Amino acid sequence: MSPVVPPSAEVAAQARHWVDSLAKPVGALGRLEDVGIWLAACQGCCPPEPLRDIRVVVFAGDHGVAAHGVSAYPSAVTAAMVRLFHTGRAGVAVLARQHGVRLRVLDIAVDDDLVGLPADVGAHKIRRSSEPIHLSDALTVAQVRAAVGAGRAVAEQECGSGAQLLISGDMGIGNTTPSAALIAAMLGLPAEDVTGRGTGIDGAALAHKRDLIAQALSRMGDRRAAPLDPVDLLAGLGSADIAASAGFMARSADLGVPVLLDGVVSVAAAMVADLLAPGAARWFAAGHRSTEPAQSAALAKLGLEPLLDLGMRLGEGSGAVAAVPLVRSAVLILREMAQLADVVG
Amino acid sequence: MSPVVPPSAEVAAQARHWVDSLAKPVGALGRLEDVGIWLAACQGCCPPEPLRDIRVVVFAGDHGVAAHGVSAYPSAVTAAMVRLFHTGRAGVAVLARQHGVRLRVLDIAVDDDLVGLPADVGAHKIRRSSEPIHLSDALTVAQVRAAVGAGRAVAEQECGSGAQLLISGDMGIGNTTPSAALIAAMLGLPAEDVTGRGTGIDGAALAHKRDLIAQALSRMGDRRAAPLDPVDLLAGLGSADIAASAGFMARSADLGVPVLLDGVVSVAAAMVADLLAPGAARWFAAGHRSTEPAQSAALAKLGLEPLLDLGMRLGEGSGAVAAVPLVRSAVLILREMAQLADVVG
Repeated sequence: MSPVVPPSAEVAAQARHWVDSLAKPVGALGRLEDVGIWLAACQGCCPPEPLRDIRVVVFAGDHGVAAHGVSAYPSAVTAAMVRLFHTGRAGVAVLARQHGVRLRVLDIAVDDDLVGLPADVGAHKIRRSSEPIHLSDALTVAQVRAAVGAGRAVAEQECGSGAQLLISGDMGIGNTTPSAALIAAMLGLPAEDVTGRGTGIDGAALAHKRDLIAQALSRMGDRRAAPLDPVDLLAGLGSADIAASAGFMARSADLGVPVLLDGVVSVAAAMVADLLAPGAARWFAAGHRSTEPAQSAALAKLGLEPLLDLGMRLGEGSGAVAAVPLVRSAVLILREMAQLADVVG
Repeated sequence: MSPVVPPSAEVAAQARHWVDSLAKPVGALGRLEDVGIWLAACQGCCPPEPLRDIRVVVFAGDHGVAAHGVSAYPSAVTAAMVRLFHTGRAGVAVLARQHGVRLRVLDIAVDDDLVGLPADVGAHKIRRSSEPIHLSDALTVAQVRAAVGAGRAVAEQECGSGAQLLISGDMGIGNTTPSAALIAAMLGLPAEDVTGRGTGIDGAALAHKRDLIAQALSRMGDRRAAPLDPVDLLAGLGSADIAASAGFMARSADLGVPVLLDGVVSVAAAMVADLLAPGAARWFAAGHRSTEPAQSAALAKLGLEPLLDLGMRLGEGSGAVAAVPLVRSAVLILREMAQLADVVG
């Protein structure tokens, strides 16, 4: 893909001037001001339009490495959770309903046929699960291309039907392992710097997860050297759901629709998206800081400071959805606050 | 006042058990889980009722010390801002409208007659402004008692008419100076540890503000020694608006209605409230971390970790109102998420 056109620097400058003229001390709304300016630049107008149409797309998939002791839960939980999303009683579903965020769940690589769910859920399915990344490549290059293409197609659907802000959510037992491995490969970090507790493992299980990530990184050899090839990285260390998420975010940025990042899976995909479509990250903001160390390392590399830091580690897009009211506040401040000159004359 | 009955420890234990049984890894919703448990304990039922009725009361007042170079703005801005609140175009008004939070603005000690505003605005007025705290006591003891009583009466009105969560906002040029002085006195800190930039002063103005706070603390002498007398502290270093806010929070806690704290003015009043009604702080949660150093010091003393940390320093209750959706999320998670047993059998 060609480089992404960045949000408008001209509108950003106008928006900064506008924010500084509001009825408050300069800078007194802190990071909300920065988010408002970024959204104005993304929309290309100041003040920006209210964010009425925000959507979260959950890319679900299983991971071969999950059978090798990296999670507190078995892979069968992935399919059960995809079904739970459709009852509206999963964590992200509760938060999305609260904030009027549309939730769409896609089975990209769940290790189950998910019989009985709406046809759209499986319309972009690439395969069942992936190969265990410490032993072999996760996917073929053809599968990666198909998954990235699926994500791009989903972005085109969402952006084309009016989405103003998108969130990529995840669901998949074991998915923090490929995410951490991808981030380690992209940042040149060792396994011990990126391995987190995921669903809550510790002690020997955590050490074992770190060892499997180290094994996967070692297996990649020179394929981790610059210049990084995002398709090869996804084939070696990724999964179809992460590849789809990366394609989704890259294409959203290309279409000029901003993306709010969630936890480590979302941020791993965002880093890959920025390789697929250089400059895409200018269209990303960080919803929350998860407890996964790889997520913080990747956000620092992307130059993004999260809006929330609440110790959340659920995934599903939940941290980003929880931050949605703040993003809306940032817009409303620019739209609805008085000018200081109206107050002090 | 007699000690405040704490939120129910029994319901808190039930709520912890409930949260741990939801369809997520244990602890995966981080601080949202803690807030949900606290609200269940405050309400005395698990899951807690949805927070439909949240209100912010802004206690406005001027400060004699403002004429001595502690702020970037003149005192006349206080009255202008109180008028702006009534147009719905002040920062906190925008955020309150976004979140369905009812906004009430009270002139406790504005140095203006505020002709033309609704009668309720001035119904609890104590006096115009206060004496400059570096030169003399801010208020008489009788004025403090009247202001605390006014705040208590307002709490009784709000709690009696259905408020489920209250926020105390502030408006008053110069008000970070008495707030910092009060916190310094209560924590035994020197002026340099509590002096912040307020509306945005720095350099010589910031050093001057620190010197005035040091002078005020020095003037208090033994009145800063334990056991601290909250009425005497408010008389010496406070103001009528802060005294009213302290009475408001103390009485809310006594009536079993939780309070979400805002910035340094709100937190100074909260510390005084906990002296007026020992144990009141168990009913308080922290909405946001402001950039004022005294606020962080006071929150640490109260054992409260803020929900937001966005570099906000507007006051008005704005940081707490911005955090309201997170508090509502905490309740909805307990009410609407499935049990893990429903998913994994």
